[in-house]
Amino acid sequence: MKEIMLNPRVVEIRQNVLKKNDILARELRKHFQEAGVYVVNLVSSPGAGKTTLLTEMLTRLGKRHNVAALVGDLATENDAKRLSQSGAKVRQITTGTVCHLEADMIKRSLEAWDLENIDFLFIENVGNLVCPASYDLGENLRVILFSVTEGEDKPMKYPTLVNSADMAVITKIDLAEAVGFQRDLFYEALNEVRPGIPFLEVSVRTGEGINEWISRLEADKEAFDKAVSS
Amino acid sequence: MKEIMLNPRVVEIRQNVLKKNDILARELRKHFQEAGVYVVNLVSSPGAGKTTLLTEMLTRLGKRHNVAALVGDLATENDAKRLSQSGAKVRQITTGTVCHLEADMIKRSLEAWDLENIDFLFIENVGNLVCPASYDLGENLRVILFSVTEGEDKPMKYPTLVNSADMAVITKIDLAEAVGFQRDLFYEALNEVRPGIPFLEVSVRTGEGINEWISRLEADKEAFDKAVSS
Repeated sequence: MKEIMLNPRVVEIRQNVLKKNDILARELRKHFQEAGVYVVNLVSSPGAGKTTLLTEMLTRLGKRHNVAALVGDLATENDAKRLSQSGAKVRQITTGTVCHLEADMIKRSLEAWDLENIDFLFIENVGNLVCPASYDLGENLRVILFSVTEGEDKPMKYPTLVNSADMAVITKIDLAEAVGFQRDLFYEALNEVRPGIPFLEVSVRTGEGINEWISRLEADKEAFDKAVSS
Repeated sequence: MKEIMLNPRVVEIRQNVLKKNDILARELRKHFQEAGVYVVNLVSSPGAGKTTLLTEMLTRLGKRHNVAALVGDLATENDAKRLSQSGAKVRQITTGTVCHLEADMIKRSLEAWDLENIDFLFIENVGNLVCPASYDLGENLRVILFSVTEGEDKPMKYPTLVNSADMAVITKIDLAEAVGFQRDLFYEALNEVRPGIPFLEVSVRTGEGINEWISRLEADKEAFDKAVSS
């Protein structure tokens, strides 16, 4: 029942919207590269812990690098407030009824910032496992977060977004036992949809995996800088 | 940044799609009423526990009533398999890339069933806190589920869907302490968006709230039957 009730005109316009987004995303990617900004796009279901994890990352990475974040929500400025506690530059994007961020929103939100002064830019997408899949934001790394409380089959239920991701982060791992999280089933599902995707288990509460993720991001950024300057 | 990058033609077509859905939903509602089928539409974020709760409800309600369920997912037939364990009539609707169920999908899925033999029909929507808001499925009761693991601010972040709901069910209440769920904050957020919405806290694991919800649904069904026959 794919694309039910959409007539060819809608499909065509949708494709044009996506195409426009791709062109903008390509431009953004070029700007980011020229300015040496490494960009991470975080996608997940609502409540997977994006903001909590990102606040931690901004705080820790912020001690050694210039970090910034854009955060998307349909409504409220809550997340920008929470993320600002890290001391990083933060801007909220409220999308109204739109269930994802688009390259154009990113471009506009960056206008007030000097990209030359940013090393890492995190984009916290709208909490949604469907809509963000098709919208390239010019990022270097798309990270999909799954919390252990969501159940083991989620990768198979949202294959498009999982396929578009470069890495998976499993959050709230300290709750794995309390919720009866079955690791085997989860990784089986993840690998069926996206074989070989790198993954990391983290808990902001216990600190598990946080240093490892920071090291990985710093190594990626270093490789990115080298590639750009060569 | 509402409806960004959509030209007036897209908005118009979208409105037409919605209008078509409303007409179909009205027809469905009439059919349900004539056949005495009480319809509950469950919406939530992915992983809030819709399928677990629904399996329990179908099993228990199924002892005294004819129950059936339709379940929507982008991919997999997992949920239909899980729900079938209850012994109820169950059909899976796979939507491909569409992030909600539409009245037309419901209509087609019901073709093989005799509505006269159904007392309660549960519709488990696609796990998404945005898209299902605008699509009436002809239901009597739209129930929004929030799990205690998702954080207290979710009602404020997804106001449109919350506003479209008739009742809120808070799931995994047995985990409230483990995740540090702050009841006051959650109900403050819920009541700010949708003052006076009825709510119920449940846990399938401990059984908390399940009997109460069954009693409420049975009372609603009784009132519905009276209204229809008068």
